[in-house]
Amino acid sequence: MADSEARQFTIIIFGASGDLTQRKLAPALFHLHAIGALPERCRFIAFARSEMNDESYRRLLFEVSTDDYSSDAQSWLDFAKQVRYFRGSSNDVTSLKRLDDFIRADSNGETKDDRLYYLALSPTLYEGTINALGDAGMLDESGGVRRLVVEKPFGTNLKSARLLNEAIHARANEHQLFRIDHYLGKDTVQNLIVFRFGNTIFEPLWNRNYIDHVQISVLEDLEVGDRAAYYEHSGVLRDMFQSHLLQLLALAAMEPPATNHADSLRDEKAKVLSAIRKPSPERAATNSVRGQYRGYRQLDGVSQASSTATYAALRLFIDNWRWQGVPFYLRSGKALRQKYTEVAIQFREPPHRIFDDEDASGLVPNMLRIVIQPNESIRLTIDNKKPGARLRAEAQELEYKFPMGMRDAYERLLLDAIAGDASLFTRSDEIELSWGVVDPYIEAWETELAAQLYPYERGTWGPNAADQFIAPNRYWSNP
Amino acid sequence: MADSEARQFTIIIFGASGDLTQRKLAPALFHLHAIGALPERCRFIAFARSEMNDESYRRLLFEVSTDDYSSDAQSWLDFAKQVRYFRGSSNDVTSLKRLDDFIRADSNGETKDDRLYYLALSPTLYEGTINALGDAGMLDESGGVRRLVVEKPFGTNLKSARLLNEAIHARANEHQLFRIDHYLGKDTVQNLIVFRFGNTIFEPLWNRNYIDHVQISVLEDLEVGDRAAYYEHSGVLRDMFQSHLLQLLALAAMEPPATNHADSLRDEKAKVLSAIRKPSPERAATNSVRGQYRGYRQLDGVSQASSTATYAALRLFIDNWRWQGVPFYLRSGKALRQKYTEVAIQFREPPHRIFDDEDASGLVPNMLRIVIQPNESIRLTIDNKKPGARLRAEAQELEYKFPMGMRDAYERLLLDAIAGDASLFTRSDEIELSWGVVDPYIEAWETELAAQLYPYERGTWGPNAADQFIAPNRYWSNP
Repeated sequence: MADSEARQFTIIIFGASGDLTQRKLAPALFHLHAIGALPERCRFIAFARSEMNDESYRRLLFEVSTDDYSSDAQSWLDFAKQVRYFRGSSNDVTSLKRLDDFIRADSNGETKDDRLYYLALSPTLYEGTINALGDAGMLDESGGVRRLVVEKPFGTNLKSARLLNEAIHARANEHQLFRIDHYLGKDTVQNLIVFRFGNTIFEPLWNRNYIDHVQISVLEDLEVGDRAAYYEHSGVLRDMFQSHLLQLLALAAMEPPATNHADSLRDEKAKVLSAIRKPSPERAATNSVRGQYRGYRQLDGVSQASSTATYAALRLFIDNWRWQGVPFYLRSGKALRQKYTEVAIQFREPPHRIFDDEDASGLVPNMLRIVIQPNESIRLTIDNKKPGARLRAEAQELEYKFPMGMRDAYERLLLDAIAGDASLFTRSDEIELSWGVVDPYIEAWETELAAQLYPYERGTWGPNAADQFIAPNRYWSNP
Repeated sequence: MADSEARQFTIIIFGASGDLTQRKLAPALFHLHAIGALPERCRFIAFARSEMNDESYRRLLFEVSTDDYSSDAQSWLDFAKQVRYFRGSSNDVTSLKRLDDFIRADSNGETKDDRLYYLALSPTLYEGTINALGDAGMLDESGGVRRLVVEKPFGTNLKSARLLNEAIHARANEHQLFRIDHYLGKDTVQNLIVFRFGNTIFEPLWNRNYIDHVQISVLEDLEVGDRAAYYEHSGVLRDMFQSHLLQLLALAAMEPPATNHADSLRDEKAKVLSAIRKPSPERAATNSVRGQYRGYRQLDGVSQASSTATYAALRLFIDNWRWQGVPFYLRSGKALRQKYTEVAIQFREPPHRIFDDEDASGLVPNMLRIVIQPNESIRLTIDNKKPGARLRAEAQELEYKFPMGMRDAYERLLLDAIAGDASLFTRSDEIELSWGVVDPYIEAWETELAAQLYPYERGTWGPNAADQFIAPNRYWSNP
């Protein structure tokens, strides 16, 4: 075949009968197909253990999310034709060799083809699956690109993450690996980079001279529900902080990269993650608050005496020139009043007040909120003159709302992985550095040094202890 | 009488049959009366040459602006009762002595009363009126406060302003003088002070390191109309620049005052006005553009060969630490497309672009617009991520709109003058410094060095030469 012709691109999803595939990946791939964003010759192999065939699997996809597919019947038919179902065990070399033959047989005799393996699997299967792929020769790139997409969590602490990275690196190169954190696929998260480095006016203020503290909140109204068996061993630090919250922190606090290319960005993120102060167990206990919502212990799979935190607030410090002495308050929890994610920059008060006490009573220090969900927006609190007599101040808000209907984070990340752009995926050193930040808190909580576990009611903003933790003179920025 | 009882406060308007009194002052006083903002015992003396009595004058006021008064009949009746008409010549000592007797006779035998003299007169009558008031002993404050409110223009150049200041200072003290510039009564103009010094985040950026240039625009859609006889001798520099535009510049560019009190503010305004570079006549010609709208020469009272500018754009430099090298572009004109006043801060580009050329194509340097009229608002152009694939930038706008129906500038300034707060009135040194800025341009235009006078069509943004004047790489911020 002529070189100029498009090569076959195959997306293989391991764990194709699972929830993630049905709810997120298949709709994302369908939509990318419908708008013509995928490679010219692209097909999909759904790989799972269940007894199904092409027809029954396609029907399953169609039934699970009708509203996405039925709106464009012709596109759906075109898409479904490209979906093949393959039954097997992802950590079994024999299964995978059959899969490899199947892919090659379907390639019209081409000797080269490109592949993306998406591991939509339980994390316990990552190592076995990658080992088996390696043993089956399916990670060798002499026949075309072979990329691996891995979901979080990646390890359960620094030690296990290191072992997993080592095992993977024995079979694949780092450039083949795409560790996905779907938060990084959100436009508003990526906007942290454009906002900070595309504008002149924020970067000069973005340091200890002008910033009092930073808040990063990832609040969920959802309860743990049927994820209890997993969650009981994970807790909020492993589930949310090691990934989403520390990635948000890295983007908000990193130095300006030289370019927006993958390694330039990831070098800066790794640098700032490595500068986060590692606390002693004593300091870890006093620099954190943990909570558990009432009702959590009644869930199936949860111990009656469970000390798993469903809420946590941490106070982190970054030991570098820019951030010395500026606290970063991070919090996340389940069963809270509202779903809400933001990065909030609390600026200091002006160095001197020219206003009388009475006129200044409405003055509020500037706060910049980058709201990531549910309603993506930029909100900047500024002080203006209160209309009327006297030079009296009043806080008001400048706001920009992002347009609705932005592309789903999975679509964005799938496209990047297909194109081989790793900017929005987490590199092995970032993963390990993030575990290094979270581990001391996990360890402190698991020893007799444990900070108290505060119960909180569902539908609140978490335990009152968290308000005292940030006080005095500082307040959580709730929506 | 007991000291605790309120003293009589009398507001005397000289020029009470004129346009300003009927359109602005009387409605403002009525509204202040209706909302109870005036001193407890406050009455009004309308002083003019016309043959009228109390009744006919009150009827005149009522008829001129029915919509303001008829909405609250009882308030109007209460207000009208306090309005007395007094016929006389303001520069005639005998007339004024009779007025003085009239005021005293009406004071229930009190020996002390407070007064505000409002000179709603042709500027040619200022000196004579103040001399006569002095000669009649009516500026002596031993019997109570005696304040003088003077409308702009104050002089026609530095020399005449100095002479006028000297003449006034021979009869009255500076603290008795309230030189009004109604622009300073606008909430959005005063907000320049709160915005700059109530917020932490703008002042660090407010200098030559981050600002490319500043634009101050006072654009009028109105034509010169029946003010032609006055305007022909004034032109746009005397009419608008010496007062409004330079006051806006002073507020935008001054150093932080120690307090927001009158002299602290006016010291800083005077300082920055005195730092504006004085150009040679040659430089004045190259640092300005002047225009005249087509049709102006056909007005009554305008010469067929008139070289009076109805539009001007100046490029000023402030020779101090903060502003060295930052051009301030000021422009104002008549018969333009729209009425629009704003102070616009154009920030520089970021020092380094981390984005590829293609991704950065939508990047626009930040601009802050403080819109003063007609729709008071704060607008901040920032760059955000363009939704969709790639880290592509796109300019968007954060906006805060001030509530409608803010208090009229005259009401605010009248209240301040009654209370003796001079913060928003122009001190004699500011007046003289402002003439010192404008005079070289007026002189350059009146000599053979004169920059060309560009004609422009009504309903445009002025002469094309103004666009070339600010180019390359800079553009006027039109609404």
